[in-house]
Amino acid sequence: MPNFQASVLVSLRPSVLDPAGEAARSAANRLGVEGIKSLRIGKAISLELDAPDEAEARRRVELLADRLLANPVIEDWSLELECLPK
Amino acid sequence: MPNFQASVLVSLRPSVLDPAGEAARSAANRLGVEGIKSLRIGKAISLELDAPDEAEARRRVELLADRLLANPVIEDWSLELECLPK
Repeated sequence: MPNFQASVLVSLRPSVLDPAGEAARSAANRLGVEGIKSLRIGKAISLELDAPDEAEARRRVELLADRLLANPVIEDWSLELECLPK
Repeated sequence: MPNFQASVLVSLRPSVLDPAGEAARSAANRLGVEGIKSLRIGKAISLELDAPDEAEARRRVELLADRLLANPVIEDWSLELECLPK
């Protein structure tokens, strides 16, 4: 069965506050790094799965992203999928 | 001053256990999603900064990634940087 590599990027919606990102931005200033205008922290989920074809692999990962990996009330997600060589 | 968009992907080193990822993988099975062979959860940091040129922007973000965003004992990171149009 073909083997797929998927990356799901989960980010907070722009209207949602990101206290962890704000804390990292303040810490960056204290480290002497200047010029940072925004810093937001999201999740990067990397997964490997077997599926009969690419459409089915995409369907499975989209279901996971919607139901398990992201909270659709406050987060958006995007998906990249590629078929791995045998 | 030019404006840059940087994405830092922080992932656990392959030798480090990922209990959150394992929990998500078990939850995926309970959701009825089959065929998942591995699932690892990392961080995706998106930041916007002003810097005089691309080399300086890269230097600043690399410093942040090494000192603040990733824990080099257990995590790897990668960086993508692009110059935003005015």
